[in-house]
Parts: sequence; structure tokens; C-alpha cells
Amino acid sequence: MSDVVVTLPDGSELQVERGSTVEDVAHEIGPGLGRDTVAGVVDGDLVAAAEPIESDIDLEIVTDQSDEYLDVLRHSAAHVFAQALGRLHPDAKLTIGPWTDDGFYYDIANVDLDEDDLDAIEAEAEEIIAEDIPIERVERPRAEAIEIYDDNPFKSEILETEAAGEDPVSFYEQGDFFDLCQGPHVESTGEIGGFSLLETSAAYWRGDEDNETLTRVYGTAFPTEEGLGEFLERREQAKERDHRKIGQEMDLFSVPEHSPGCVHFHPNGMAMRRELEDYIRTKNDELGYEEVWTPELNKAELWKPTGHYENFTEQGEMFNWEQDDTEYGLKPMNCANHAYLYGRERRSYRDLPIRYSEFGTVYRNEQSGELSGMLRVRGMTQDDGHAFVRPNQLEAEITRTLQIIEDIYGNADLDVLYKIETKGDNAIGSDEIWNDATDALREALESKELDYEIEEGEAAFYGPKIAINALDALGREWTIGTVQVDFNIPERLDLSYVGEDNDEHRPVVVHRALLGSFERFMGVLIEHFGGDFPLWLAPEQVRILPVSDDNIAYAQSVADELDGFRTEVETRSWTVGRKIRAGHDDRVPYMLLVGDTEEADGTVSVRDRAERERDGVSIEAFGDHLEHERDEKLTSPTFLD
Amino acid sequence: MSDVVVTLPDGSELQVERGSTVEDVAHEIGPGLGRDTVAGVVDGDLVAAAEPIESDIDLEIVTDQSDEYLDVLRHSAAHVFAQALGRLHPDAKLTIGPWTDDGFYYDIANVDLDEDDLDAIEAEAEEIIAEDIPIERVERPRAEAIEIYDDNPFKSEILETEAAGEDPVSFYEQGDFFDLCQGPHVESTGEIGGFSLLETSAAYWRGDEDNETLTRVYGTAFPTEEGLGEFLERREQAKERDHRKIGQEMDLFSVPEHSPGCVHFHPNGMAMRRELEDYIRTKNDELGYEEVWTPELNKAELWKPTGHYENFTEQGEMFNWEQDDTEYGLKPMNCANHAYLYGRERRSYRDLPIRYSEFGTVYRNEQSGELSGMLRVRGMTQDDGHAFVRPNQLEAEITRTLQIIEDIYGNADLDVLYKIETKGDNAIGSDEIWNDATDALREALESKELDYEIEEGEAAFYGPKIAINALDALGREWTIGTVQVDFNIPERLDLSYVGEDNDEHRPVVVHRALLGSFERFMGVLIEHFGGDFPLWLAPEQVRILPVSDDNIAYAQSVADELDGFRTEVETRSWTVGRKIRAGHDDRVPYMLLVGDTEEADGTVSVRDRAERERDGVSIEAFGDHLEHERDEKLTSPTFLD
Repeated sequence: MSDVVVTLPDGSELQVERGSTVEDVAHEIGPGLGRDTVAGVVDGDLVAAAEPIESDIDLEIVTDQSDEYLDVLRHSAAHVFAQALGRLHPDAKLTIGPWTDDGFYYDIANVDLDEDDLDAIEAEAEEIIAEDIPIERVERPRAEAIEIYDDNPFKSEILETEAAGEDPVSFYEQGDFFDLCQGPHVESTGEIGGFSLLETSAAYWRGDEDNETLTRVYGTAFPTEEGLGEFLERREQAKERDHRKIGQEMDLFSVPEHSPGCVHFHPNGMAMRRELEDYIRTKNDELGYEEVWTPELNKAELWKPTGHYENFTEQGEMFNWEQDDTEYGLKPMNCANHAYLYGRERRSYRDLPIRYSEFGTVYRNEQSGELSGMLRVRGMTQDDGHAFVRPNQLEAEITRTLQIIEDIYGNADLDVLYKIETKGDNAIGSDEIWNDATDALREALESKELDYEIEEGEAAFYGPKIAINALDALGREWTIGTVQVDFNIPERLDLSYVGEDNDEHRPVVVHRALLGSFERFMGVLIEHFGGDFPLWLAPEQVRILPVSDDNIAYAQSVADELDGFRTEVETRSWTVGRKIRAGHDDRVPYMLLVGDTEEADGTVSVRDRAERERDGVSIEAFGDHLEHERDEKLTSPTFLD
Repeated sequence: MSDVVVTLPDGSELQVERGSTVEDVAHEIGPGLGRDTVAGVVDGDLVAAAEPIESDIDLEIVTDQSDEYLDVLRHSAAHVFAQALGRLHPDAKLTIGPWTDDGFYYDIANVDLDEDDLDAIEAEAEEIIAEDIPIERVERPRAEAIEIYDDNPFKSEILETEAAGEDPVSFYEQGDFFDLCQGPHVESTGEIGGFSLLETSAAYWRGDEDNETLTRVYGTAFPTEEGLGEFLERREQAKERDHRKIGQEMDLFSVPEHSPGCVHFHPNGMAMRRELEDYIRTKNDELGYEEVWTPELNKAELWKPTGHYENFTEQGEMFNWEQDDTEYGLKPMNCANHAYLYGRERRSYRDLPIRYSEFGTVYRNEQSGELSGMLRVRGMTQDDGHAFVRPNQLEAEITRTLQIIEDIYGNADLDVLYKIETKGDNAIGSDEIWNDATDALREALESKELDYEIEEGEAAFYGPKIAINALDALGREWTIGTVQVDFNIPERLDLSYVGEDNDEHRPVVVHRALLGSFERFMGVLIEHFGGDFPLWLAPEQVRILPVSDDNIAYAQSVADELDGFRTEVETRSWTVGRKIRAGHDDRVPYMLLVGDTEEADGTVSVRDRAERERDGVSIEAFGDHLEHERDEKLTSPTFLD
């Protein structure tokens, strides 16, 4: 009948008949493309090749050369898993099984799986892949679909919700297996080159704690065996570096049950945190920040004028309660308290910028299921700061902040990715103000010759932002620090300064956290270094190993000479070999062996974390070196290079 | 009829007839004493001379030579106030009017008083004193008392509560004035040598926020005019040193309405706090403490096993609430979190003492009416610490802690009073354990040759304590630090260590806070120094005053040379005189005047807070001196001594 307009990635337009499928359009573009079509991306969503086009759309054809191919392949891998599961556990009930960034999962009911079960299912899945079974889209009458899932309440619910009113209903089939599914999928199970099941966990149906608990099976798939091998190796490395594991091994921190999401810093972790605090204080001094302290507990009314109360309570993210007829809350951020400090006095243009920094502890009521070690927390101490500047000081303020951020992340051995988040739909303030501020962010990055990406429409409602993402040793990206421009708070709290013209003007607020929070930054550092911290951060910097108990007194005197370093003397009556192994296990950067020879010569025998050695080193020479390595914040032991 | 036994302060016993009055007993001891008797102290309570003795008691006779005489005199002064009030404001209704440590107050209803009113009442009171009206105890039938107070609901309530069942009822009369009262009182209004009304405030009937608001009038009285004069002078000095006033003048801190009882540290106050933090950290290092950090937010269940939950919630002193089906609380103290850290691992006798320190922020829901600046707060950061020791390490641990406390208070220029609080009625644990621990406290104090007082029965339920009270420049006493022995927590949380005998043993916990909290300690320091802080604590240590704008660049270069000190350059275009006055107003320890002469010579002209001067000082010499004064923590500017 009527035509619809399909806009292709190159901007060209194609008129096609309403109801044509993605594959039809591909054939129209060219028969080769038609043959290779795996799926389509319609207005940003991945859909099956058989998806009919009912209105004007943007379309991208997905082939096995596209980035999206991996998603499609993993979606099919989820079906392969489900087929294998059905062969071995016919009573299991399927619910949903989507692809993810790392692979896929499938949530299933009515079955308990242990590791042996997973192994067996994986073997069965390999079998199905080897069988190279064609995967086909099949449409069935709605009545038949309802009948099929008569004894599966989950699929029945999907028929009544996501698939409400659809008739016929879309299924995908491979051999004797079928699943209610919109696709897309690859053409045959044999396209999967590497398949692996990874782990199981508990999950709630629809992610809602009030619903039934399901078993979630995680897996992944790749077009090739090598792709899978690389993935599994990276995953193994990541596991080895898991900050929760290392945190326990090195006795850095814990998150006990009496305080979900709230990190307890043990002495070792606190030593690292204090180093970071001291370091950030010197950086805050350089930037002209004045340190303040504001309480966690405030009346909830504090956050109402800024809009934060509404924002946080709507999402249940605030800890707030009523007591003695007063509504209290724990601060979810520090800006309201800092704005109060700014607003206490009449400010002149000559006073600006006024900059407050605070190691401010904030609490946010994140869902308990999402908490994880130091990286997903409820309580965190931000290295927060707010600069109240005149509009014409904005770019310079941001430039100086970026310079410091480059220094810090360099010292922490992390590469940085900058992302500018721009005005979104819910933004307040005029386009002009936003453009100026976004330009200020861009120009600041460009003046420092820093690469950046633009994330259109991603900014918070109050102003544009530079998100600072760190890349760790495994190439993983972590959002950590932030530099944000805020027009909202000055407006809503009626903050002002008196200009040269003697009139009242609005300052702009720059929010910034250099590290983000100590919790998150330390979590990233632990995973990045795998616990092999640079000397300045290492909880224990030097361990002195007396060869025999007779050398303990000398070992202690060496420790005393290394005053100012975090030094321990190993006093356990172990063999030297065992002492050295313990030192390595504890990831101590330097071990100093002291036996009768060293004691007679007044020297030490140095052994570093990389098991390199040098004998007969004077304590003074070693101390000088240590001081250099620490103060320069070198990222790995260098003495024996 | 029957006799009762009266035990006198010297231990001697006297048999007297049941129903004899205090005065009767005094007469029996001697006719002179009988004549001089003002009141009695029966089993620790101050009572009237006419009080009948109905059982065996301890008795002390109060004459005008006794310490308690001042209390009796002030009680009478409250009646003199009430009489004067009645003459001028006949509609005012009396409620209660007790003596206090500093004088007396009277809570009254149905009247509004401004300063002129107070002056007039004070003049009328002087009149009543000059009239030298005899004060007499009179007993009236209960029915008559009820009739008298027919239109006074407060006195009526007292008749139904404190005086329930009394018949006849005790009144005190002086001329045409009378008041429902148990006494004691002096014999005549003329005994009051000095009388003054001090201020008014609002108060709730019975101190309960749900009751009617009354007007509280504070006053004081002394036997002599000089006594009053000295008191008023000290009071004026104290007002000048009020930490809230100085805190505002020096922009140190504020306690905004959005956060009652929670101090916001401004940059100047934070500079002081950081100095104290750094200092305490060095002391904690010396004592072998390891720093930790634990969150403010925990589940309420954390404090249940220790008994703190019950204790704090009974008094409504905890911030706790239910959210998402969980009861949360803000930690009112840090010990439960530290006990968790101790209990995480199996501990050996070789590991002990294990000592955790934390700058731990705690919150307690104190009544809003009792909050005052930094000294009575809801949120405070304690310089807390818990040492887990073997019983035989207890005394040594306390001795070392006391030594550090002596150092700290000496550096802060404060004299210290030690008070041992001993086992009370609600104590847990055997007498033997308490005796051992109390002995350990006593022996530690004696080994350091420190004077102390004993406060019998005053200890908290879990163990004996040394309360550390500081004496400030005005001779006022402030309870600040604490060293406490705790048997309760190890017992209740089943903490243990493995001894040399390979058996499990209980450690003892020593709680200690050297400063108490940063809030309270700073409040005391501000009042003690009146804002004239020692150099190491002064928020602004040096201000450089360019004689003219032409000298600003040189002033800046001097500031740069004094790197490491908190230095400001005065850039306002004021006269030198005004700049100097501003520096004095801001209590800056040192001002450096720099004009053309200084600039030509490369010198500065030094002026200290005491307005002493020296010209032509080299920057290096001044800097060296400054460093010495700061690092030695000298308590006042010494350069120009």
C-alpha cells in the first residue's frame, strides 16, 4: 500500500512498502547485503531481520561484520544454553534470557544447578553447536502460544505484558527447541565458535525483591575459539585482581553485615587512604581550596530548595526519617552545605573564586543487591570541592582543575578518558548559558590538548559535566572523578556577589571530585595494581627479615633508622624461605634480609617484590632511595632496576 | 518515744528522740552551734534547720561558715526576687525557684519582662534586702494551701506531686510574701550582701517541651558586695571569651538552623581542627595506635549485644529509624565498630595490645534546648581510641596514656584535674575485677605523681574511669578527655585471645579520648585563650601589611618566603592604622609592616598581638623564629619578649 521512508547510516533515503522487513530493505540495497543480513538496528534498537517496518525509520543493516553481531550471536547462545538445559533438566522453566555486554544470562525456575550440572550443560551445548542446527523464526497463533505456556507462569506473564495483543506471536526454533522470542538470532547454532558457561547467581523475577527467586546462569559466546580464550583469560586476571579478594588478603577493608555498603577501613587500608588524603590536600592547596567540614546529619529541609530532596527521595536513594517531629536526612552530597557557607556572607567580585574542599562523607540508599565491595557502596567519602566563580573565571578554573587531574592520575598510573556530557531534555537554564558552559569545558580540554568524547544529552539537569574515566591495567573503564558546571544551585539558593558595577550577580558553581571517593578510587587502584601498590601507597612498605632470632635486635635497629616509613620486623621463628614467601604473599614492596654478615657490616640485603636482589647495601643508601621512590610516587619498585 | 541515731561528720554518734529537728540536734551538740545553725545536710541533702529527723541518718550542721551556706543564701535570694516581682507584677505566677552553682533562677508564668523590668525588680529586691525582713518557716493546713494556689496550676501540681499527702504543708514567709517551700533559708533578707539579676530565658514547665513555656529569670547573690563584684567581673570576662561570639568574630564555625547541634567548620576553624588532628595523630603513633575508619551509618542491631542500644534509645539519645524494613542508626560511639574489627580474627597474646584509633564522628540526639555552640552538640568527632589488652597490660597501658595526656594538655596550656569514677549500683562484673581495674587507674595516676579525686559510685556500668577535666584561664572546669576500663564489651561480644597456655582469655578494653572531641576541645580552647591562640593553632598566623599599594608586590614576596605558614597579605586600600586595627581585631599573632624602607632593605617591621614592635628584621630571622614558636607549640607570641 503506502510507502515509508527508511534513512540509512549514510543519510540516504529509501522508499519501501509499509510492512517490508529489514531483510527486504537489505535486498533492495543490494542482493549481497540481503544475503548477509543477520539483523537490523531500527532507531537504535537491535531487531530481527524479519522485523516489518511500519513507519519512517533510521535503519542500519547488521551483518557478521557489524559490532552488533556479537550481541546477536550471544542471544542465540542463550537459546543454545536453554536447549541444552531442556535436554538435561526437562522440568526447568525458562523465563528470560537476554544478551549483555559480556555475554548472556538466562533466568530459570524449578531447577537447582551445581558446578557439575553446569559442566554437563556446557558439554551438551557444545554438542548442539557441533550439530549446527538451523535457527528459524516461526509465528504461531496467540491461542497456541498461550496453550504452550500453560504451565509456565513467567512466559504466560510475558504474553500478557510485552507481547500483549500480538497475534501471531514470534518464536525462534532450532531443532526440537523453541522459545517465545522477538530475536534477532544468527542463522545456525554452528556460527558460535566459542561457548562457555561462567557462573550462577540468584535473581528475582523482573528484578523485584517481592517476586520469586530464580536461578540466573551467566555464559558467554564468541564467533571464534580464540575470542573466547582471550575473554576467559582477562576474566581470570580480573578475578585475581578482584578488590574484594585482595582487600581480604591484604587486610585492607571489610563491609560487614551490620553496615551494608559501608566500608570499614582496617589499619592497612586506612594507611592507603591517609596517603591519598594527604596527597589530595596538597593538590587542593595548589588549586586554592580552603578545607571545611560539614555534618552528615541535617534536617531534610536543607535539600529542598536545591531540588535534590525531590530527586533523591523519588528514587528512594536518600536515608531520611522523622524523629521528634523533624525530618532528618544524611547528606547525599555536600553541595548544599557548601552553598550555605558561601551564602553566609556578602561576597564581592574581588573575593571570587571562593573554593571549599571537604573530605565529605555522603550516604545514598543504593539497593542492597547492587552493593559490591568498595566499588558499589552506600557510604563514601568524596574528595569533594565547590568553586564559586564569576562566569568569566569559569574556563580558567576548569583548566587548572584538569591540569591537577592529569597530575593525579599520572601519579596513580591510570590513563584517563574525558567525556563531556551535554544538555539533555530535563535541563534547566537557557541554551545560551549551556552553550557557554559546554564551550568552557571543551575549550579547557582543548587548551590542555586532551582528547575527549561527547555524550550528547547525558548531563544532569543542572549543568554540563566532564566525566573522568580511568582505564585500568586490564583496559577496563571506571568512572571516577568529575568536573561539573552548575547554574542551578546559585539560582535556586539565590547566591550572589557584588560586581564591580555594584550590582548583584550570580556566581557559577564548579563541582569537582578529583578521585571521586576514597572508596571507589581505592577499589580501582587495588584492581589496577592487583595489590602491588607503588611504594607511597603500600600499607607495609618495608619488611625486615632477620635470618635467625639472633638478628632480631639488629633488624629492629634497621627499622628504627627507616623512621617515617611503614616498616615491620618479621619476628616469627620461621625459615628464611617461609619468611620471604610470606612477604611476597603480603605484597610488600621491599624485603630486607639481615643475617650475621649484614649485622657485622651494618648493611642489608635488599629483595624486591619482583624477586630481584642486591646484597651489602648500606641502610643510608637504601633509605635515600626509598625516600626518592616514595616522594616521587614512582609506580613500581625501582631500586633494583 | 523511740530514739534514732545521728552520725556526725567526725564519726561520733548521737541518740536523739525521733522527730527532733536538725536545730534541736545542733543545740544538743552545743548551744553556740544551735544558735548559728542555718540548715543541715542529711544523708547528703541540704534541708531546713526545722527538718524533723525520723530515722537513723548522717548529719552535718550548716552554719554561715559552711560551703553550703551560699546555696541557702541564694535560695533566699530567689524568694527576695519573687517578693520584688510580686510587688511590681502582681499577676505573675510563681512556679519553682531553686539555687544553682552560680546563683539561682525562678521560673514564672503570666508575665513578660524586658531589661527595664529586670532593673526595676532588682532595685525593689535591694529595697527588700535593706528592709532586713525576717524569714520564717510557717506550716499551714493542706486545705488552706490548696485554696491559696487555687489560681496557680503550677503550685497546685506541686501540691499533688512533690508535696502529695503532706499536711500541714511547709511555707516560708518574709513580710507580706510567702512561698510554698521546704527551705532551707537564711534568717533574714538582710543577710544577702550582694544581689544581682543576670538574664532571662525561656524554659518549659518541668523541662518538658510539651508543657507551657515559662520565663526563667537568672540571678545570683553573695554574702558580701565584693563577692558579687568578683563574680560579675569573671562573668563579664567569660562573656568576652564566649566561644560562640569569638567563633563568629574569627569566622571559625557556625551551627546553622538546618543542622541543630552539628558544627560546620569554616576554613579558619578547620585550619585549627587540622592542626589538632595532626598533633593527635603523632600522639596516637607514639602510643602505638593504628588508625581506622568506620561508618556513621550502621544497622541498629550492631549496638544491641553491647547494651548500648537499650541504653541510648531509652533516653531517646540515639538517631535511629526504620527504612526498607531495616532499623538503622547513627553511631553514638565507635566502640562497637572497633570491637568488630578486633573480633574479625583469631588473636594471640603476642598480638596484644591491639590499638585502634579513629577520628570518629558520632551523633547523639541531645535535646534541642540544651544545645550550645561547640560545647553542647549533637554531632561530634571524637579522637577516639580502643586498646584491647591483656589484664596484666592494663596498668602500663593507662600509665602511657596518662603521660601523653599530660603532654597534650601542657601544650594546650591547660591545667588538668583527674577524677576516678568508681563502681556504682548498676555496675556489672565482680567486685574483684572492679577493684583490680580501679587500682590500676589509681596506681597509674600515682606512678605519674598526678593528683586526683575519687568520685564514688559515679562510673558507667561497664567499668571504672578517669575523667580528665581541664581548668581554663578563668578557673572553670571542663570535662574533656577520658580513660575508661571496660569489661562489658569483651564479655558481651565474646572477644578473646589465645594465651600462652593455649586457652581462650578475655581481653580488657581501654577506651580513651585524649581531647574528647574536636568540637568540645576547640570550644574550650577558644574560651581559654579568648581567641588569642598560640601560633600553631592560629588560623591566620601572619598578616603582611603593605604601607601603601606600591608595597603589595614586596608584601607578596615576603608571604611567599614564609611558605608553610598561614599567611595573608592585606590588600585593602586602607590607612596603616586601620590595617593594624583590623589585624588586632582578627587576633593575628604577628603583623609585618612593609613600606619603602623595608622593601629597600629586604626586611620587615614586626608587630605582635601584644602591640610590641621591632623594625628592620630580616625575613629569614623572622621565619626561623616563627618555625620555632610553631613547632614547639609555644602558647603566646615570644619573638618580641
